Amino acid sequence: MRYLSFLALVLAIANQASAAKRKVIIDQDAFEGPGMQPILMLLQSPDVEVLGITTVSGDGWQPEETARTLRMLEMIDRTDIPVYGGATYPLVNSKELTELREKRYGKLGYKGAWTETWPSTDEMSRADYHGPDVIPPFAEGHPSIEAAEGTAAEFMIEQTKKYPGEVTIIAMGPMTNLALAQRLDYKFASRVKQLCLMGGTFNQPLFYNHGPFALQRAYSPRMSFNYQWDPEAAHIVHTSPFPKISLVTSDASVDIFGTKELLDKIASSDSKVAAYVTEIAKVGFPLWDEVQAGAWLEPDIVTESNTLWIGVDTNEGPNYGAILTWPEESAPGIGERPVEVIYSVDQARMEAMFTELLSH
Amino acid sequence: MRYLSFLALVLAIANQASAAKRKVIIDQDAFEGPGMQPILMLLQSPDVEVLGITTVSGDGWQPEETARTLRMLEMIDRTDIPVYGGATYPLVNSKELTELREKRYGKLGYKGAWTETWPSTDEMSRADYHGPDVIPPFAEGHPSIEAAEGTAAEFMIEQTKKYPGEVTIIAMGPMTNLALAQRLDYKFASRVKQLCLMGGTFNQPLFYNHGPFALQRAYSPRMSFNYQWDPEAAHIVHTSPFPKISLVTSDASVDIFGTKELLDKIASSDSKVAAYVTEIAKVGFPLWDEVQAGAWLEPDIVTESNTLWIGVDTNEGPNYGAILTWPEESAPGIGERPVEVIYSVDQARMEAMFTELLSH
Repeated sequence: MRYLSFLALVLAIANQASAAKRKVIIDQDAFEGPGMQPILMLLQSPDVEVLGITTVSGDGWQPEETARTLRMLEMIDRTDIPVYGGATYPLVNSKELTELREKRYGKLGYKGAWTETWPSTDEMSRADYHGPDVIPPFAEGHPSIEAAEGTAAEFMIEQTKKYPGEVTIIAMGPMTNLALAQRLDYKFASRVKQLCLMGGTFNQPLFYNHGPFALQRAYSPRMSFNYQWDPEAAHIVHTSPFPKISLVTSDASVDIFGTKELLDKIASSDSKVAAYVTEIAKVGFPLWDEVQAGAWLEPDIVTESNTLWIGVDTNEGPNYGAILTWPEESAPGIGERPVEVIYSVDQARMEAMFTELLSH
Repeated sequence: MRYLSFLALVLAIANQASAAKRKVIIDQDAFEGPGMQPILMLLQSPDVEVLGITTVSGDGWQPEETARTLRMLEMIDRTDIPVYGGATYPLVNSKELTELREKRYGKLGYKGAWTETWPSTDEMSRADYHGPDVIPPFAEGHPSIEAAEGTAAEFMIEQTKKYPGEVTIIAMGPMTNLALAQRLDYKFASRVKQLCLMGGTFNQPLFYNHGPFALQRAYSPRMSFNYQWDPEAAHIVHTSPFPKISLVTSDASVDIFGTKELLDKIASSDSKVAAYVTEIAKVGFPLWDEVQAGAWLEPDIVTESNTLWIGVDTNEGPNYGAILTWPEESAPGIGERPVEVIYSVDQARMEAMFTELLSH
């Protein structure tokens, strides 16, 4: 009895120490600088335990993203973090269907891995178009380590069984892995602590006063890449019983860019993370997913938010993938959930968090 | 010869005098105050020749609107203006389809003549729901005059044949009559001088900072009543060769209301028009169509506009009727046209125009 009490005490203390760290799975279409920086913010945060990183096609193809993520972990000496390759293709959507839709309904502003040619204004060092089986050369080199065995969806299911009600999933890309996990195991969503999503534009700036990144939002404000890449997955996610869902909109990062000033501040540090960021960062990109990570790390930087009931248009057409929003009393009642929608954050605090986390 | 020359001269002078007035057909879902005020602005404008008023279902049913318009003309002694009853039903859409769509995709904010029950906050003195064959009692009484023979579409075709390139059509409601005219006579659109449309929200105010009228726009910004009542008609209009199309958005009237102050100013006049307005006006409604009329009457009140290529989502779904916009290089090339989109007007000049025209 006495021995068992002592063991219980030890276990309780161990559990508490572990519980003190916020457990998170990062699900990301991890492509170059803007894809890696938010992952690094979470990895660098002292009170966060990153259980693993899962990848999903979107900005790039999953195998390439997985390799880039592994290479990043190698370069910053964090090969303790497992990486799980997730879905390569969306559930229903495809490059071919998207191109047919563009012929009928007009060209999309951004198509991620499906983009055939990049505009000359693009600052990303994109390889020429290639399929998912090709991994082009990386400036930083290919990784020598490999992804963990198993899929992203399986890892999510397993971890939420191990830590029911404790794991937050920060999904920074399309929602294919989440949808697969929920259809593999219908109790998956209810075991997640919180799901943080990124996408949508709700308060777009004036039409004729846009920068290059606002352009596509201005022309089709409810079409947001993370939703339009895999609308059916987004529908599944928004009709699944996650206990808490938050959505960081593109509005929240409208004026927050990875400026030369911020990146120079990081470059002045001699840490491995700073060296990696300095090598891969691109000046001038909005800190889309970084703001998402920041709003979860320090929720009190959020300055404007409200609750909306959210759905997804899965009908073929120009609005395939468009975000639908309702006040509670107008929602259709097909399983849609309330979502905390975040419209803005404290810019100074966000920028400080970004440079501090990526400097040490 | 001499006699013929003299006749030619007389005709030329008569023609010039007539040409000096801007010819217009007003196509309106003319329902109560907010529907009549913009018609009155155009009727009262000294350099405008209103060839006729055509009605179309939308805010109300066409027969009721036609009767209200006739009664208005009677009360202001302008029975010289012919009124043509237009389309009662949209081309494809229906109350039943709309209600099925609402079950699946969530409740719409505004449904015009299809509204079964009005919210208690509504300030319009709406009769209980009724079909198009019922004309409820009017506070101002029923008209003793009748509509002209023939349909709205036929009148538009005939007038543009009589005055090719001279007639502007100011369409303040759904576009069913325009679509019918174009399909009855495929050269119709090319004979119109200018088509002025009303609808759409492009720079909606912050989501959580809306008044009652911004609410529905905030939840589905690209769904606009004049488009969603008859999406196929709007598609036909936006793919027809009108030489010039302008669209006055709801953004342009966001802060411009029929305030008590403005209506009191009108009420202080003893003209018949002022008396009519005073009887039918509702305090606090945005001057949606009045701004449309004002922007055509005095184009230099427009403070912000640009050119967009516009289309309409005619796919069944939650975005059935949503406005699509493209920069020229992204447009699909299915007949869509450039549209001058008007986002804001000089409020002081607009309000002055409104009170002056409705006071004399």
